[in-house]
Amino acid sequence: MFNEESHLAAPIRWGMVGGGRGSEIGYAHRASAARDRFFALTAGAFDLDAARGREFGRDLGLDPERCYADYQSLFAQEAQRDDGIQAVSIATPNSTHYAISKAALEAGLHVICEKPLTFTCAEAQELADLAKARHKLFAVMYGYSGFPMLHQARAMIEQGLLGDIRIVTMQFAHGFHSAPIEEHSPGAKWRMNPAISGPTYVLGDLGTHTYYLMEMLTGLEVDELCCMRQSFIQSRAPLEDNAHVMFKFKTGAVGTLWASSVNAGSMHQQKIRVIGSKASIEWWDEHPNQLRYEIQGQPAQLLDRGMPYLLKNDAICSRIGGGHAEGFFEAWANLYHRFAMAIDAFERADQAMLDTLWYPDVQAGMNGVRWLEACVESADQGAKWVKF
Amino acid sequence: MFNEESHLAAPIRWGMVGGGRGSEIGYAHRASAARDRFFALTAGAFDLDAARGREFGRDLGLDPERCYADYQSLFAQEAQRDDGIQAVSIATPNSTHYAISKAALEAGLHVICEKPLTFTCAEAQELADLAKARHKLFAVMYGYSGFPMLHQARAMIEQGLLGDIRIVTMQFAHGFHSAPIEEHSPGAKWRMNPAISGPTYVLGDLGTHTYYLMEMLTGLEVDELCCMRQSFIQSRAPLEDNAHVMFKFKTGAVGTLWASSVNAGSMHQQKIRVIGSKASIEWWDEHPNQLRYEIQGQPAQLLDRGMPYLLKNDAICSRIGGGHAEGFFEAWANLYHRFAMAIDAFERADQAMLDTLWYPDVQAGMNGVRWLEACVESADQGAKWVKF
Amino acid sequence: MFNEESHLAAPIRWGMVGGGRGSEIGYAHRASAARDRFFALTAGAFDLDAARGREFGRDLGLDPERCYADYQSLFAQEAQRDDGIQAVSIATPNSTHYAISKAALEAGLHVICEKPLTFTCAEAQELADLAKARHKLFAVMYGYSGFPMLHQARAMIEQGLLGDIRIVTMQFAHGFHSAPIEEHSPGAKWRMNPAISGPTYVLGDLGTHTYYLMEMLTGLEVDELCCMRQSFIQSRAPLEDNAHVMFKFKTGAVGTLWASSVNAGSMHQQKIRVIGSKASIEWWDEHPNQLRYEIQGQPAQLLDRGMPYLLKNDAICSRIGGGHAEGFFEAWANLYHRFAMAIDAFERADQAMLDTLWYPDVQAGMNGVRWLEACVESADQGAKWVKF
Amino acid sequence: MFNEESHLAAPIRWGMVGGGRGSEIGYAHRASAARDRFFALTAGAFDLDAARGREFGRDLGLDPERCYADYQSLFAQEAQRDDGIQAVSIATPNSTHYAISKAALEAGLHVICEKPLTFTCAEAQELADLAKARHKLFAVMYGYSGFPMLHQARAMIEQGLLGDIRIVTMQFAHGFHSAPIEEHSPGAKWRMNPAISGPTYVLGDLGTHTYYLMEMLTGLEVDELCCMRQSFIQSRAPLEDNAHVMFKFKTGAVGTLWASSVNAGSMHQQKIRVIGSKASIEWWDEHPNQLRYEIQGQPAQLLDRGMPYLLKNDAICSRIGGGHAEGFFEAWANLYHRFAMAIDAFERADQAMLDTLWYPDVQAGMNGVRWLEACVESADQGAKWVKF
Ligand SMILES: NC(=O)c1ccc[n+]([C@@H]2O[C@H](COP(=O)([O-])OP(=O)(O)OC[C@H]3O[C@@H](n4cnc5c(N)ncnc54)[C@H](O)[C@@H]3O)[C@@H](O)[C@H]2O)c1
Ligand SMILES: NC(=O)c1ccc[n+]([C@@H]2O[C@H](COP(=O)([O-])OP(=O)(O)OC[C@H]3O[C@@H](n4cnc5c(N)ncnc54)[C@H](O)[C@@H]3O)[C@@H](O)[C@H]2O)c1
Ligand SMILES: NC(=O)c1ccc[n+]([C@@H]2O[C@H](COP(=O)([O-])OP(=O)(O)OC[C@H]3O[C@@H](n4cnc5c(N)ncnc54)[C@H](O)[C@@H]3O)[C@@H](O)[C@H]2O)c1
Ligand SMILES: NC(=O)c1ccc[n+]([C@@H]2O[C@H](COP(=O)([O-])OP(=O)(O)OC[C@H]3O[C@@H](n4cnc5c(N)ncnc54)[C@H](O)[C@@H]3O)[C@@H](O)[C@H]2O)c1
Repeated sequence: MFNEESHLAAPIRWGMVGGGRGSEIGYAHRASAARDRFFALTAGAFDLDAARGREFGRDLGLDPERCYADYQSLFAQEAQRDDGIQAVSIATPNSTHYAISKAALEAGLHVICEKPLTFTCAEAQELADLAKARHKLFAVMYGYSGFPMLHQARAMIEQGLLGDIRIVTMQFAHGFHSAPIEEHSPGAKWRMNPAISGPTYVLGDLGTHTYYLMEMLTGLEVDELCCMRQSFIQSRAPLEDNAHVMFKFKTGAVGTLWASSVNAGSMHQQKIRVIGSKASIEWWDEHPNQLRYEIQGQPAQLLDRGMPYLLKNDAICSRIGGGHAEGFFEAWANLYHRFAMAIDAFERADQAMLDTLWYPDVQAGMNGVRWLEACVESADQGAKWVKF
Repeated sequence: MFNEESHLAAPIRWGMVGGGRGSEIGYAHRASAARDRFFALTAGAFDLDAARGREFGRDLGLDPERCYADYQSLFAQEAQRDDGIQAVSIATPNSTHYAISKAALEAGLHVICEKPLTFTCAEAQELADLAKARHKLFAVMYGYSGFPMLHQARAMIEQGLLGDIRIVTMQFAHGFHSAPIEEHSPGAKWRMNPAISGPTYVLGDLGTHTYYLMEMLTGLEVDELCCMRQSFIQSRAPLEDNAHVMFKFKTGAVGTLWASSVNAGSMHQQKIRVIGSKASIEWWDEHPNQLRYEIQGQPAQLLDRGMPYLLKNDAICSRIGGGHAEGFFEAWANLYHRFAMAIDAFERADQAMLDTLWYPDVQAGMNGVRWLEACVESADQGAKWVKF
Repeated sequence: MFNEESHLAAPIRWGMVGGGRGSEIGYAHRASAARDRFFALTAGAFDLDAARGREFGRDLGLDPERCYADYQSLFAQEAQRDDGIQAVSIATPNSTHYAISKAALEAGLHVICEKPLTFTCAEAQELADLAKARHKLFAVMYGYSGFPMLHQARAMIEQGLLGDIRIVTMQFAHGFHSAPIEEHSPGAKWRMNPAISGPTYVLGDLGTHTYYLMEMLTGLEVDELCCMRQSFIQSRAPLEDNAHVMFKFKTGAVGTLWASSVNAGSMHQQKIRVIGSKASIEWWDEHPNQLRYEIQGQPAQLLDRGMPYLLKNDAICSRIGGGHAEGFFEAWANLYHRFAMAIDAFERADQAMLDTLWYPDVQAGMNGVRWLEACVESADQGAKWVKF
Repeated sequence: MFNEESHLAAPIRWGMVGGGRGSEIGYAHRASAARDRFFALTAGAFDLDAARGREFGRDLGLDPERCYADYQSLFAQEAQRDDGIQAVSIATPNSTHYAISKAALEAGLHVICEKPLTFTCAEAQELADLAKARHKLFAVMYGYSGFPMLHQARAMIEQGLLGDIRIVTMQFAHGFHSAPIEEHSPGAKWRMNPAISGPTYVLGDLGTHTYYLMEMLTGLEVDELCCMRQSFIQSRAPLEDNAHVMFKFKTGAVGTLWASSVNAGSMHQQKIRVIGSKASIEWWDEHPNQLRYEIQGQPAQLLDRGMPYLLKNDAICSRIGGGHAEGFFEAWANLYHRFAMAIDAFERADQAMLDTLWYPDVQAGMNGVRWLEACVESADQGAKWVKF
């Protein structure tokens, strides 16, 4: 069970870039970072529109002085203060992640950045190198990886309960963009603009989440992949609103991934199924408290969050008893919790602690970008197989 | 969509009685009250064990001075301070609700009390009268009533989409106490002790939630009921670990309710189905983002939280887009949000505002107790029908 | 696996009374009796309208001479023939079951009669006595009892896998009669006419099936029951379109049953859940190939028909591999198979064989009628408890 | 509703090759062909072992004289008889389909052959040509295509309810061969032997069914495909126990298909989802009475078999009321019903009738083989895209 009493010597002074009024994901960051009192929102550059950003910050209870016009000012001025922020979350459109992350690291901040991390692998590598050089922690917001039942799955796989992993099927396929709603939705519009979204749309917006879950659950490494992508709404070209990927992993395992925003009528349908020689597990993000565990030759089992039969593991942790529904926000809070613990351990140079702590880091972010690059390379050559 | 910017002039200074270390429901209160920055946890008497309560409060970041040894001190000393608490939540075992609530009202505090409100209807009435006399708001923590999809259901029923309500089936039946685990679980033990739990166990612990959902959804009033209750683990007698109730409502509608803690293998199975002359709705607390809507003669419909086709209504409000799972904590945060808005409106004597605000109040709490009294009366006469 | 080669020395010469053109359940009898070539449809009095019945029989491939104008002629004339029928199925409205069954027994036929068996217990007893006196087998068409997964459940309960049985919840509640469609549906109309339907509508039409499943699965005997019934469409009075029953069984176990034809939007929702001290099982007739098995403290299990992990037992028998859907007709065919085997063993006076054969017999039919009588007695005294 | 009275002037005299004692699919053919009395099983060469085949036929009630030692004798001797068989079903392992079908056509029989039809497209073409030349009807046993809800889906698509078809996802992936059980299962063993199974295992055994459903539902034609296949149990090479296919259709639509027998813990998981610009439909063979219909922007709908809101169409036909479960055998019976009607119309040269009759014919069988050839071509070149 979650230990509410655990706390840091002091909450980490924390700022945000982006995530302003009406943004899709800003609230999720704030609600989750604040959840366990490990982060204190202290400053921000929330919005491209400086005045709106300031008003917004003030409404959130911030000192208006610390609601900056842009991230440059945020980093520069906070760096001047004794009580300046120590960490920053970046929840801006994709095109800006690289520059803002870089500036944040250079300003001496720990960074929590949204996905996809950057446009290119080279940029991601640069951030990784810079984080190392500056001794800063760099986390990436693969939010689903905070769900306890996925850690249950991960531990089961690690213990060999599935046998050798043979196949992984992944999908994240909603239908909200079946029609060209971007004409009236700025949040949809930028996602389909390569200058802002980067080289992909649904692969980077959706697929990258499930791809990361695969990495996290199985540790499999891609050997080759083949990707086809389409824009069923043609004005979205060159970016795809639908994509299918086939994988060959280094171990001989194989996989598929489907990312889509034109899966008409579907809410999310983010699902991952890991199939081993003895058993399979399956998880569905719309009903995240359950995990299906199917041992070949036995009745299928439905595991529920919060139950004593789950493995003992810090990441398989509940905030409310089994039966009750935990959701998206608990997953994110669990992640922010770990980010804070990692930052704290990092600052205290407590490597032993850090070694026990799991969280999606800059390497995970870079892997995602590398995967996107490979998908684009494949798709743009007519869905050819490419070596990873 | 939830408006993160909405805030009060200042957060309500808020205290807690009970909900200390290891308690079942304390964290839920704190996490939910804090969620929207409408309440600031400022003081508390968290634990029967004063030292443990103080340590706990300190770990939560409270001023240890304001972690009191008992609720009497809490109320007395906070009343002396200019910055004393304005409201208190009571999350102690049932036997104490009446006395603590009364003391809180007398100390000039708004009260949010756990369910079941009191042991007797007379006590509940007294609290209602006292709240009125002291001009204080009194809310009761029927937490499930914060789920947006239930408000969707409520609005649909109000608009007549179901036709005349004919039947309501209710159940809240878990299996966690199939064996006498109370021998090793203090949290289970007090629930089966009439001195602490009151005249019922599963009816007051579980059934009262679903009964309230029925009231909230349909507004139906009971005319007569018939209740049988059992203790399958005999040492639990006179309290029941299983109960079944049949209802005749004043309109001619009928209903059933099943409350159990010996429904072996079940997680919660809290479900409510409201059946009208034209259509039915069904909701299940383990998958709270969905609502089943079945119009006779048409395909069954699955409504999802966060979708534009839902009715427009402040209480059908989302904190994250549809497809993502919201859960228990959002439901509770929604309720605490409304409690704060109500307290604020109340203090500002803004009756117009209050009139638009829905929340479970002392009357709702009293109705629950009245229902429990009727159930006991019926059951203890051999499951006879009793007038309500 | 089903053994297609098993056969009798010769198929049983079989006739039908009722089940004519456009009848609801006639085809189910013929398709199921014919399935394993154990019964040969040879004669019938299919219809109240003699000409239509003859035409119908001829279309089914019968000798028109043997399509009789009424059951009296059928029984009389077939009795004259060397190759006359040996058994008859009665698929006429309820009011006629008693007289036709009696005449059939007196004509020396084995009888398979639809449910509810008779209007009164006394009549049912008379049939039981007569069958005994005439040395004839008498089966009752509780069709759901032919589903293999229910026999799996039965065997699991018998083996004690659930522990002591504590609670049984039952429901069969569709919504097809939410509006007064009987005005245009003769099949619905007679069901609501006490002269034809008997003393109950939904209890005898629907509830009696699930009540029998309870008997078959658990062997529990009712000690007392309490029943309320309503006609939401008032013109249906005195018969009910909705009813709720509470049970106290002799062992101390309890139960509930809900029968309805005004559960708007529902297809069938026939479900039975048997709850023991250690585990529960649950079965749903709309998805009959699955059985939910929930051991308290372990993940819920989903058992599938046709799998090697099922218990070995003649009645847990598949006609096609697991994964494929079997349905209603296999359940009925399984029952007719057993009726034939029982008739055959009976004729050969093979008591040893008979002792190993399970099927719903006249006693099962009588139990159903007795239950209906008790329900009516209770309901008509204002839902009072009545001793069974 | 199914019309039980419909019948042919006389049942078609029908024989079988294969499907003998213990075979997997023989019973399904016999039970389904016999269901509506359109076919009369009259002769057969059921088994490779002549004596066993004769004994088996006799147990089924056949004249032992007409239980032949091999298909050659069957065809030759039946051709001599006035009352010789008119049609034959071929339910032998794949390698024999071509020769037996050819011989049957040459012997003047209508043919119903199991899938996959042949090893090569050339062979399939030859059979198609021969059937034409000999004026015989040739049907292929794509059994799932008999499910009414798939015809509902087909009609909905045809009416444009989905808009333009964009994506089709298909899977048929069980786990029964996760371990090398073929060592003890002859039925599994031949499927993995290219000499008997042909150039594929799971693609031809499972995938071909779902591929046909796609053709039947959408009429889409493949432009290019890319297939990877594996044998996770290595002794199965060169045949695959797992395969993934990506499709580009001529219209610009795309698709994926997954066939597997190593999807550990899965029963069947045959699913097809057709996604259009406005809505999607999804069907799952383990719960075949339901169809999910998801219009973008509206609540998901669950359509149930047997309901008045379904489209009116001969192929959307029920044998028992909605709510009851129909299954595999009804689907097959529906197909055999149509085969018989087609044979009858064919013999009567009733082209008008034939034009209204839908059933999977030799062209459908050939399409399947062509698809398998393309899959193998792709897979064996390292999962390259191949033109169709
Ligand atoms: N982890 C997840 O589940 C998840 C979900 C949604 C979005 N995302 C990611 O989060 C990021 C933001 O997405 P969104 O949907 O919230 O976008 P959005 O367009 O809704 O909001 C972006 C916000 O950033 C602000 N902004 C833009 N540029 C800025 C700049 N240079 N400086 C300061 N503020 C700036 C905008 O004013 C706006 O408030 C994207 O990278 C997206 O991929 C992740
Ligand atoms: N709304 C819900 O969903 C929900 C869920 C669980 C519990 N509850 C209700 O909440 C209440 C508490 O239940 P619980 O399960 O958390 O109990 P618990 O036994 O787990 O915790 C009770 C806490 O109250 C403290 N306490 C007891 N008496 C006190 C006193 N006089 N002064 C100060 N502190 C005191 C205890 O030390 C302990 O920390 C009960 O009324 C219960 O019915 C409601
Ligand atoms: N076991 C089940 O699941 C199930 C399902 C449906 C009906 N039933 C039972 O089957 C019986 C028939 O129900 P139904 O819905 O098919 O009724 P129906 O009204 O649809 O058909 C009754 C048929 O019986 C014929 N008939 C009536 N009286 C006759 C007589 N005296 N002699 C000869 N034929 C006569 C009618 O002409 C008609 O063909 C009822 O007892 C009903 O309770 C059982
Ligand atoms: N449509 C479906 O859903 C489905 C399902 C299962 C099998 N099938 C197909 O049906 C065919 C048979 O498969 P199965 O699993 O039943 O095989 P099986 O091995 O279980 O049975 C094959 C039967 O054919 C007999 N046989 C073999 N060669 C013969 C010959 N030359 N002459 C006469 N009899 C012969 C065998 O003795 C045996 O009885 C295969 O083509 C398979 O792909 C289709």
